[in-house]
Amino acid sequence: MLAETLAAIRPADPRALAEARAHQDRLTKPRGSLGVLEDVAVRLAGAAGVSPPPMPEPAALAIFAADHGVHARGVTPWPQEVTVQMVGNFLAGGAVANAFAAQAGATVTVVDVGVAADLPDAPQLIKHKIAYGTADLSQGPAMTVDQAVRALEAGILVGKELVAAGARCLITGDMGIANTTASAALISAFTGMDPAEVTGRGTGIDDETYERKVGLVRSALRVNAVSDVSSSPSEALRALAAVGGFEHAAIAGLILCGAAERVPVILDGVIAGAAALVAAALDPAAIDHCVAGHRSAEPGHTAALTHLGLRPLVELELRLGEGTGGLLAHPMVCAAVRVLHEVATFDSAGVTEKPV
Amino acid sequence: MLAETLAAIRPADPRALAEARAHQDRLTKPRGSLGVLEDVAVRLAGAAGVSPPPMPEPAALAIFAADHGVHARGVTPWPQEVTVQMVGNFLAGGAVANAFAAQAGATVTVVDVGVAADLPDAPQLIKHKIAYGTADLSQGPAMTVDQAVRALEAGILVGKELVAAGARCLITGDMGIANTTASAALISAFTGMDPAEVTGRGTGIDDETYERKVGLVRSALRVNAVSDVSSSPSEALRALAAVGGFEHAAIAGLILCGAAERVPVILDGVIAGAAALVAAALDPAAIDHCVAGHRSAEPGHTAALTHLGLRPLVELELRLGEGTGGLLAHPMVCAAVRVLHEVATFDSAGVTEKPV
Repeated sequence: MLAETLAAIRPADPRALAEARAHQDRLTKPRGSLGVLEDVAVRLAGAAGVSPPPMPEPAALAIFAADHGVHARGVTPWPQEVTVQMVGNFLAGGAVANAFAAQAGATVTVVDVGVAADLPDAPQLIKHKIAYGTADLSQGPAMTVDQAVRALEAGILVGKELVAAGARCLITGDMGIANTTASAALISAFTGMDPAEVTGRGTGIDDETYERKVGLVRSALRVNAVSDVSSSPSEALRALAAVGGFEHAAIAGLILCGAAERVPVILDGVIAGAAALVAAALDPAAIDHCVAGHRSAEPGHTAALTHLGLRPLVELELRLGEGTGGLLAHPMVCAAVRVLHEVATFDSAGVTEKPV
Repeated sequence: MLAETLAAIRPADPRALAEARAHQDRLTKPRGSLGVLEDVAVRLAGAAGVSPPPMPEPAALAIFAADHGVHARGVTPWPQEVTVQMVGNFLAGGAVANAFAAQAGATVTVVDVGVAADLPDAPQLIKHKIAYGTADLSQGPAMTVDQAVRALEAGILVGKELVAAGARCLITGDMGIANTTASAALISAFTGMDPAEVTGRGTGIDDETYERKVGLVRSALRVNAVSDVSSSPSEALRALAAVGGFEHAAIAGLILCGAAERVPVILDGVIAGAAALVAAALDPAAIDHCVAGHRSAEPGHTAALTHLGLRPLVELELRLGEGTGGLLAHPMVCAAVRVLHEVATFDSAGVTEKPV
């Protein structure tokens, strides 16, 4: 399924890009006056292969939940049980992601790709558990390559189901106590940057824990002999398995699925940024179908966005995950595309254009 | 009506602020992890005097349109007729503001406070024309103080009507070719900054026009003997009349109305920023009821926001006006408030809190 998905991905369509750019300049607004949002609308036209592109709504948020063996090393003060507790909170509608999704009119689907507990059935829960958490990445591979591929394919499958159910925009979400540690390791592996530059304080840790976290990321890269892997798909898969998490793999799959289905993907924060580096290594054209929702407070996220050439829409110092930053960006992405559909041209509205 | 409105304005309620802050810390998210949006929700609780504050929807956009005598001096390549043409475009639903309002579920009302042409009746148009454009601010007062007060009161009246019709959030909008010149003059007058620091290129001008624009702002302040007027309400009114526009006065009125009615106001760009300086000089507590929607590309806007102590939510290099930046911010303001209404607490959700 992975190979089939990769084979279906097309880069941005140059003709649709050019048409969208030309159309922007005919609309009743000074040229370029919508700033970054003009680029977003043009980008989505390129991704869809048509200008104007379809409206990216309704959106579907997929929250991929998993646990991490490295948690046992003490990288966060939050107990591991919070992962499964928060899954329950999402399913009960009580998390911030639920509130933001309600505001954006987005559906919420939770996917167990590796929570370290058995979960009761629930209507909004999809079970694709690969294992009860990853192994400790600081001691050896977090997963086997086979497990990583299965998690990737779980993400693809979820994406296909959401699109089949009517989603016209996919938003990445994550839940996994300790997953900023795996994100930092992935980002270091894919950008070649030093662990100290890309490791952050996650949801809040003290100096001692921070130093330990950086050391564990460094160990993970050394023990697994992973460095600067972005140019080779097979090395990328090996690196994902070695230092990633099940949710990173699944989010990479969701991104590839969106690209293959030509349904745009809004990336959330640092976990999505790390996953997008994996997707980009498997096929750089996948990123043509992505919009960066927000810039998280994690330093690794900025490193990932820079590597991917993406400019985020929301910069409000969020550091929550769950898809919250992606959900906040969704109405702006819709607004950007709506302009191409609904705004009058200078000719049609009888408005005098500025002499060039 | 102005005096009555000013008398009704209350500053942020300290108890509601404290309750909202305490409530944020009980919710199932790491403390502070919603960044700037936590402050927005707390701010709106303080403004409403209750935590959680009412959801700020539906929103109503009021676009105040007016012309400017200084246009004749050549501060922009756009002909003055574009003001009235764009009013037609708003009323026909063809402008970017209409598309963004549709996305946000906001109503659009256009108010003629000083367009240099007679306008046909239309359902979404309110006529409060004070004059056919202002006088040239570089030669003497743009308006009389009486005209300025009438324009302020037009803004108050429009705000009252929108709130009576069900609006639970007011968004400021403007249309007026040459109005960034008046904005720069107001911002210089209220912040004490030099005209060269606060004058920008509006919707796009060349170097020669830019130099002329700075010179005209400088003349306006000198001819009208206006400088650093923010500490006196009567001086503020005189400065507004001397170097402002009818739309600036009306937007200041809308802000005061929102504050008096305890309905939050989302400020758009540089024109709203200049108007908010006027409102703040009349009553600093009015700003407790405002949220800065976005940061425009105009340098004067940043100066105004800094003076007001506001951090904008959207920073995407927009330079269009019309209320577009305020409309983009509205879903985020709603999302911020929705968190206080809908997100579960650690206790209620059975989620383990991080040990402190």
